[in-house]
Amino acid sequence: METLPNLPCTKGAAQMFTGDVYADVIYTGKEPSRLCANTVRFEPGARAAWHSHALDQVLYVTEGTGLVQSRDGGMVIIRPGDVVYTPRTNSTGTVPCPTAS
Amino acid sequence: METLPNLPCTKGAAQMFTGDVYADVIYTGKEPSRLCANTVRFEPGARAAWHSHALDQVLYVTEGTGLVQSRDGGMVIIRPGDVVYTPRTNSTGTVPCPTAS
Repeated sequence: METLPNLPCTKGAAQMFTGDVYADVIYTGKEPSRLCANTVRFEPGARAAWHSHALDQVLYVTEGTGLVQSRDGGMVIIRPGDVVYTPRTNSTGTVPCPTAS
Repeated sequence: METLPNLPCTKGAAQMFTGDVYADVIYTGKEPSRLCANTVRFEPGARAAWHSHALDQVLYVTEGTGLVQSRDGGMVIIRPGDVVYTPRTNSTGTVPCPTAS
């Protein structure tokens, strides 16, 4: 059992995000695990560029409200407690947040 | 992309916990994934019996303070933002919480 060190918070790269987005690593798995768990904070109006994830993505909303969309589908309002699953085959998604409540 | 349904909150089984403990499923992976992500809430004074996890465990503390211990090691105070990794080979752990701050 070990308490893992808190790594420095990193700001999202400009080519991936519009506005200010900050990420903290919770855990990065060791081989053969390929798990990545992060907290990601979007400042008001910030959003992610269209992107995809090689091993699917599970979004778990802890605070605020936002919008998430896949390129081939509709936009969904997300609120605390919501879980959004995006398979690797689902081309891309974006997360503007927060919206008006 | 899909918003997953919120499953009913479940109360921890008496043989696994002392006091009231409540769990909500965030996500359960589909094969070949074996990921399980849950939120677990410990009422004051509640604790988990000694146990282990077949695929390691990562605890990420979001609220409150608590104690976590492995049978072969010391007790650690956990606070929001802390991440505690317990490998499958690490016999067992317990989580009384909250402690006095």
